[in-house]
Amino acid sequence: MSEREKLKQTDQLIRGWLSDVRQTVIADLHDPLSVSEKTSRKDLVTNIDKANEKRLVAAIRAFDPQAKILGEEGSGDHVTDMKGHVWIIDPLDGTLNFVKQRDNFAMMISLYIDGVGVLGYIMDVMRNIIYGGGPKLGVFANERRLESPPNISLRDGLLGVSGPMLVHDKYHLQAIDAASSGVRIIGSAGIEFIQVLTGKQNGYISHLMPWDFAAGKILAEQLELCVTKVDGTPVDMLSSNDVLVSTKDTHKDIVNMIR
Amino acid sequence: MSEREKLKQTDQLIRGWLSDVRQTVIADLHDPLSVSEKTSRKDLVTNIDKANEKRLVAAIRAFDPQAKILGEEGSGDHVTDMKGHVWIIDPLDGTLNFVKQRDNFAMMISLYIDGVGVLGYIMDVMRNIIYGGGPKLGVFANERRLESPPNISLRDGLLGVSGPMLVHDKYHLQAIDAASSGVRIIGSAGIEFIQVLTGKQNGYISHLMPWDFAAGKILAEQLELCVTKVDGTPVDMLSSNDVLVSTKDTHKDIVNMIR
Repeated sequence: MSEREKLKQTDQLIRGWLSDVRQTVIADLHDPLSVSEKTSRKDLVTNIDKANEKRLVAAIRAFDPQAKILGEEGSGDHVTDMKGHVWIIDPLDGTLNFVKQRDNFAMMISLYIDGVGVLGYIMDVMRNIIYGGGPKLGVFANERRLESPPNISLRDGLLGVSGPMLVHDKYHLQAIDAASSGVRIIGSAGIEFIQVLTGKQNGYISHLMPWDFAAGKILAEQLELCVTKVDGTPVDMLSSNDVLVSTKDTHKDIVNMIR
Repeated sequence: MSEREKLKQTDQLIRGWLSDVRQTVIADLHDPLSVSEKTSRKDLVTNIDKANEKRLVAAIRAFDPQAKILGEEGSGDHVTDMKGHVWIIDPLDGTLNFVKQRDNFAMMISLYIDGVGVLGYIMDVMRNIIYGGGPKLGVFANERRLESPPNISLRDGLLGVSGPMLVHDKYHLQAIDAASSGVRIIGSAGIEFIQVLTGKQNGYISHLMPWDFAAGKILAEQLELCVTKVDGTPVDMLSSNDVLVSTKDTHKDIVNMIR
């Protein structure tokens, strides 16, 4: 079997994991949640986050037992470098939306090999669409292949932002807002990445952990989008970063404004 | 025929108008748009806004020839009071989203008789859901009856806001943001009202014209939500207002914070 054929099989397998986990999320959607605060009352974790992560970790362990797994809720490994196979998972991204809205949340999985992004997946759970693929496969929204979105400038697009960063005017974000066509706040990094992948927003800026951007970075770069720190330097895959994902022209516009 | 039966007939008629107009919007969705700026480059109007309004005005004129019509794009009447039958329409709400995203936009219609809200409709065009009804009919999302959302406090919910009002900290909106569970920015008053009607947000604050809030006000009040100016005083149906729609408890929390 060629490497590409193997990747296509893995792609189908991962989409299956996400669909299976989604089924239980949807089946239990209106059950009472067990909600705990992590760093603050706006940073939550639920029994569903934890259950999803356990199922995804188990699926990855069975499929790729030598790999390291970096997961938001800690049921993976303590990962200190990107050597070999590293799976990065966010079992429920946008937990506050999940708790308050039962909408606008995502699940994400990615596979890096020796630091290189190989496969990335973002599932919009309520719309039941998996955006996924990688450099060898292209990017697909379920069965539909995505083309690179138009390379629009900051001025011509809508920019996704973090609410706290906008309020605190970090990186002159209020001036960047004024220079754009407007800002939007969704509250889920996964859904924001989807907006950029599909050309509905020309960018997104937020303070993110590796599991928030690992999958989106692979998909975005495959679609000729830029993913860096807000100052234009490379992101660190093992720590938090202020991340900018955007079209190339918007990237130039924003990096010029904050320097 | 009873008054309620007549209203149910009118309800079905209005839902039909919206569905008919939606069909042409969807059919032409990827055609080139003719876009003009109104007050600024962030305040747009397209050929679709204008065509939708003409069709809705024609339908209303045929059905209720004596009525006055207040429409965003000016093909209605110059309305100076709320006496008699007044129809208020927004043929395409969230035009910037429509232009940039082809998503997250709405159409709205309402009927006021002698200043009293009788029927209101908000259509989420891309999701093909009409939220509509009134005091005599209840509120339905297509065929599904909506119950009043839980009366949650500011602290426990997500608040929809206007981006410019947040950045300029109008009404201490940054402190209100901090006191809530978080803010969201969608960019369409119609879609924001839907979020509040369905309990996905506990409120929404923005500077709105009558066609932005006339339909939502009828539906919100029917679901035991409050619709006032941000300072708690009644809205003026014939001019712009800084509007707050929210649960009762969130309304108290916000009005107390801004006084």
